Amino acid sequence: MNISALLTSAGINIGFCALFLSLYSILRKQPSNVYVYFGRRLEKENSRYEDPFTLERFVPSASWIMKAWEVTEDEILTIGGLDAVVFLRIFVFSIRIFSITAVVCVFGVLPVNYFGQEMQHGRISSESLDVFTIANVKEGSKWLWVHCTALYIITCSACSLLYSEYKNISQMKLAHVTGSPPNPSHFTILVRAIPKSTEESLTDIIRNFFTNYHGSSYLSHQIISRTGRFQKFMSNAKKVYKKFVRIRVTALDNKCRPSLYRCGLCGVVSNSFQFYHGDYNGKSTDLQHSDTRKRKECSAAFVFFKTRYAAVVASKVLQTSNPMQWVTGIAPEPCDVYWPNLWIPFRQLWIRRLATLLATIVFMFLFLIPVTFVQGLTQLDQLQQKFPFLNRIPNKAFVIQFVSGYLPSVILQVFLYSVPPMMMMFSTVEGPISRSGRKRSACCKILYFTIWNVFFVNVLSGSVISQLHIFSRPKDIPAHLAKAVPRQATFFITYVLTLGWASLSSEVLQTFSLSYNWMRKYIFRLKDDPNAVPSFPYHTEVPKVLLFGLIGFTCSILAPLIVPFLLVYFFLGYLVYRNQILNVYSSYYESGGRMWPIVHNTTVFSLLLMQIIALGVFGTKDAPVASGFTIPLLIFTLLFSEYCRHHFNPIFKNFSAQDFIEMDREDEQTGRMKDIHMQLLTAYCQLPPPTSNAEETYYDDSVIGDAHNQVTI
Amino acid sequence: MNISALLTSAGINIGFCALFLSLYSILRKQPSNVYVYFGRRLEKENSRYEDPFTLERFVPSASWIMKAWEVTEDEILTIGGLDAVVFLRIFVFSIRIFSITAVVCVFGVLPVNYFGQEMQHGRISSESLDVFTIANVKEGSKWLWVHCTALYIITCSACSLLYSEYKNISQMKLAHVTGSPPNPSHFTILVRAIPKSTEESLTDIIRNFFTNYHGSSYLSHQIISRTGRFQKFMSNAKKVYKKFVRIRVTALDNKCRPSLYRCGLCGVVSNSFQFYHGDYNGKSTDLQHSDTRKRKECSAAFVFFKTRYAAVVASKVLQTSNPMQWVTGIAPEPCDVYWPNLWIPFRQLWIRRLATLLATIVFMFLFLIPVTFVQGLTQLDQLQQKFPFLNRIPNKAFVIQFVSGYLPSVILQVFLYSVPPMMMMFSTVEGPISRSGRKRSACCKILYFTIWNVFFVNVLSGSVISQLHIFSRPKDIPAHLAKAVPRQATFFITYVLTLGWASLSSEVLQTFSLSYNWMRKYIFRLKDDPNAVPSFPYHTEVPKVLLFGLIGFTCSILAPLIVPFLLVYFFLGYLVYRNQILNVYSSYYESGGRMWPIVHNTTVFSLLLMQIIALGVFGTKDAPVASGFTIPLLIFTLLFSEYCRHHFNPIFKNFSAQDFIEMDREDEQTGRMKDIHMQLLTAYCQLPPPTSNAEETYYDDSVIGDAHNQVTI
Repeated sequence: MNISALLTSAGINIGFCALFLSLYSILRKQPSNVYVYFGRRLEKENSRYEDPFTLERFVPSASWIMKAWEVTEDEILTIGGLDAVVFLRIFVFSIRIFSITAVVCVFGVLPVNYFGQEMQHGRISSESLDVFTIANVKEGSKWLWVHCTALYIITCSACSLLYSEYKNISQMKLAHVTGSPPNPSHFTILVRAIPKSTEESLTDIIRNFFTNYHGSSYLSHQIISRTGRFQKFMSNAKKVYKKFVRIRVTALDNKCRPSLYRCGLCGVVSNSFQFYHGDYNGKSTDLQHSDTRKRKECSAAFVFFKTRYAAVVASKVLQTSNPMQWVTGIAPEPCDVYWPNLWIPFRQLWIRRLATLLATIVFMFLFLIPVTFVQGLTQLDQLQQKFPFLNRIPNKAFVIQFVSGYLPSVILQVFLYSVPPMMMMFSTVEGPISRSGRKRSACCKILYFTIWNVFFVNVLSGSVISQLHIFSRPKDIPAHLAKAVPRQATFFITYVLTLGWASLSSEVLQTFSLSYNWMRKYIFRLKDDPNAVPSFPYHTEVPKVLLFGLIGFTCSILAPLIVPFLLVYFFLGYLVYRNQILNVYSSYYESGGRMWPIVHNTTVFSLLLMQIIALGVFGTKDAPVASGFTIPLLIFTLLFSEYCRHHFNPIFKNFSAQDFIEMDREDEQTGRMKDIHMQLLTAYCQLPPPTSNAEETYYDDSVIGDAHNQVTI
Repeated sequence: MNISALLTSAGINIGFCALFLSLYSILRKQPSNVYVYFGRRLEKENSRYEDPFTLERFVPSASWIMKAWEVTEDEILTIGGLDAVVFLRIFVFSIRIFSITAVVCVFGVLPVNYFGQEMQHGRISSESLDVFTIANVKEGSKWLWVHCTALYIITCSACSLLYSEYKNISQMKLAHVTGSPPNPSHFTILVRAIPKSTEESLTDIIRNFFTNYHGSSYLSHQIISRTGRFQKFMSNAKKVYKKFVRIRVTALDNKCRPSLYRCGLCGVVSNSFQFYHGDYNGKSTDLQHSDTRKRKECSAAFVFFKTRYAAVVASKVLQTSNPMQWVTGIAPEPCDVYWPNLWIPFRQLWIRRLATLLATIVFMFLFLIPVTFVQGLTQLDQLQQKFPFLNRIPNKAFVIQFVSGYLPSVILQVFLYSVPPMMMMFSTVEGPISRSGRKRSACCKILYFTIWNVFFVNVLSGSVISQLHIFSRPKDIPAHLAKAVPRQATFFITYVLTLGWASLSSEVLQTFSLSYNWMRKYIFRLKDDPNAVPSFPYHTEVPKVLLFGLIGFTCSILAPLIVPFLLVYFFLGYLVYRNQILNVYSSYYESGGRMWPIVHNTTVFSLLLMQIIALGVFGTKDAPVASGFTIPLLIFTLLFSEYCRHHFNPIFKNFSAQDFIEMDREDEQTGRMKDIHMQLLTAYCQLPPPTSNAEETYYDDSVIGDAHNQVTI
């Protein structure tokens, strides 16, 4: 690939991006797509979108970019929660560090690479891209100190930026805990592995234990029951009943429409529903009451305390001398509780964790099979020799081009789409008690998967499985990577250009959600469902962004041309995701910024990988001095990582006694405590409350693969 | 080596053992050695040993064995504390498991090995030892299932024995916590990294913080001061003063002796000291008082609480939103506190831990240099070719035998003696706050060191450094070990015979302490110092015993002949250490059985290593079925280890709320609480109290290498 080809490719991609973005700016103005592009806003602000028919609706505009740009961080915090802010901080950090990298690499490293060999340079546009990589630098060249200096500058600025981000985010997290309105989860602990007894009922056992050992602060408790088959049947029956109630209401409220559409599957307009709410509510509590006896109690319960401090204390202390009984932990927020996992016996958890770890690793390696097959397709003639039946494929040029040029990436994409749901399933089996915890766990799994399967497997591409043996000789890894990464630099540039930019366009356009909406509306003739607003798919988006960061760091020194394209990606991503958080996704639950330690660790890993590869490169280029200078940098980065782990990590895992005691005192003084206690008793509700918002509050995204099909539920 | 040579060697060693043990049984009856062999008893029971001169004193007897055998576990518990019981449980466990192994291996594996090849067997006494190892089994032999079954039997019985031991010891630990008299450490937390202020004094800061946030349970606090140079000078001056006081008393009390011996270096008879005690005590408190102002306060303090539960709560909860300030942890027992480390700023700890980890690893590898040199000496002719100056060594047979046969092991032993003090130094630098913690940390380091340098380096012997590369190919390790371990089986048998048995003889004879005592008495003419009773050197003895366990497990299947010798070692060791705990060592401080998790993990590691080696052996012997059956065993062992970690480990790290609350209630009801609070305030005393027992209570064993030179202090 030469420069002009790269520029052509970039031009095409820029064209496509511009096209998609203008398409978006038109589509978002169409009233029929309002639930696709303004789901969160409609849901939260309870307003109906009405727009007169004007010509302006069909003129592309950049107003959404301006709107996304102008929103302040505080507004994002109130709209999307701390998680959204943390997610956007990844972009801010990336833009900052890659701006520095761009300056260093374009003005320092690039000229050294370009003039590395004593050769006749032609016109720049026809130069091969290899001329701009470190492969062009002579062995034993004295100019490698430029690369080494660049390494120092990048590492040091990345570390200082990371430090300040971690510090800011932990302060934000603290302010979020102390500044937000009273949170039921702060007063509640989840007790698991409660020993059962034939003499006492479970509720008596819990009451006796906590009044005995935490008498002064114990308030109440709520047993968690396992929803059995009967419960599921009742719950389904209730749903059907609800639908029919809705339909009757609609029939009363609206004008008659052909009854064809009003079967049990139809959605109804939500604001006509309040009518029957009270009545239904009364019935439901009766139902709930009779259910409770039939449900199986499981040995877990929420225990409420009078103060936040008491809850923290009860969650931290080992309750009895048997560490497998009365296991306590701070409870998740009410809407963050993942009810289906609460019945899992505590003693199963460690084995589930091990099993899912194993399953994830096996899945990661099994994924190599389709990857290898796909890579085989690009060498069709070789495949034809091995499998004679492939000879029947007509030897026409466009068929071959289709099979070897287009099919592989389609197959790979299809396989890649299966990854998030698989990982989500593994995370569910693992047994987390909160939905945010499950998402975080899936995020880590997808992250490892992406880094392994996109970065490492591509770097060692060609014959992945035959190259696996290099991992059995850890010492040779730097040298191998040093050879492979510059060779793959072109691939990574096109990866950023196509997949990176395209993923942003598809994100903003919500292609899947849009086509689903159209199908729903014009083929099945269903009405809009205002409650099907998806929550932000952090578990798929965070790994994507972090992967580009990893590619950026590892390639920056070796092939500096990648950095400008990455910068464009991050800048565009920053705008797009701000827009999406403002308009599309709702935040039903949040982890309180616990995503950041993952981001931090991955970035540190990227820095270390960058340094190890540089070490290998300096080794193969015969530059012992540069190699020698890289080692202290490695040690410094490791020390920095340990330092941050000690200074900030505990904040994300624990609540501080000082803060909680002061919040308790304030509530006592203002007399709010009584109200909080009253609210506490009803805060955690295992059965979905029968209001119209119920479905989405208790909405299960376990089967959701990509962000886009979340709307299906 | 053949069987008769082995039996000769065993005979010689048995002879030596018998000789040493009878020597011990005579020496222990001599009044001059009473402080060497009955230090603990004399110190604790405050009795003077008086023995009339009888002939019986010079007749060897086995009465000490009977006495050691008859003592019950409860007596050991009261005498030596939980740590001593846990230490002896290692022997009980080893005797049990190796009895099973002996039966399985001698009746199952040994015949299979012996008749493995179709060959003419000569007389058993002249058979090579290799005939009894797995090396004698044909490739692809069907009889390898015997080895596989033996592996299953050993692993399963080891796991069930380990489980029951862990269970028993954790119950013992719990009973120890609840059953023992009120312990000041249960009411006390150690607070570190207290923020300093220019406006308030440190003591005000602490008082304000704890009355504000833990007001209902806060009792008092005690600031820790850093002993500076002035303090050291004062402390030394005090010691000299004390000595002179003692001497004057001795002069009054005893008959006059030539004044030559009564310099500042002399020891005095302790029971004549009470005389001046009160007077001196008064002076010392004055001194202490004036000191306190001059001492530097460091940002750490002991904080006392009214109840045990409150202390546990305060130690567990994150105090403020800055995780590097107000760091709390449960305090060690008063006599377990390692004062010199308390001044270390908390923020230094993580870096110290990393540095010592690095230093330990470097030390472990640097140790290969003397080992290689020593191994080179055994091939003197090769060395002479390389270093011509060695040719000047006279070529007489005995010189060569001396240089190549005796010198290497002496040099190695000298180097090995330097290991415990080095590791103890590393552990001190690491910054543990308790003496038991420091010993435990040193124990782990010595354990890793021993396993690496005795097991792995010997297995890969000959050219250690040239074989290091096998660790860069993890996949090949099992095959390498499978080849190397059977080859080294003979070496390990002689290792057990000589070093194992000899170390027990030297332990019971206390060679170092004995000769030091003689020197002291008959050359320097010093009197006995009844306070110089050493504490049990767990950090050197536990690794030794565990190493023999490791050798036993790894060799049992491959060379079953080793097992009987090991059984003798463990049985003898059981008796010897019981005797030593009863008579010799004192227990000033204890870790409460926290040694057991280390023992458990090491044993699980040994089992895994045994299985990995077996896997390698089955691989090289072409027995895929046996290999296949070994893998589930590996997984089972890993699962077992995880299971135990979850079920028992928390007990060794935390105190349970239930137990503490009930202990608190009992003390409240019996009215003992007031007394306990009074005692608390004086429990932790940074300056050694000026009573005669002070010196050994605050006795510093940082410079102690082997067990034997502990008496030197």
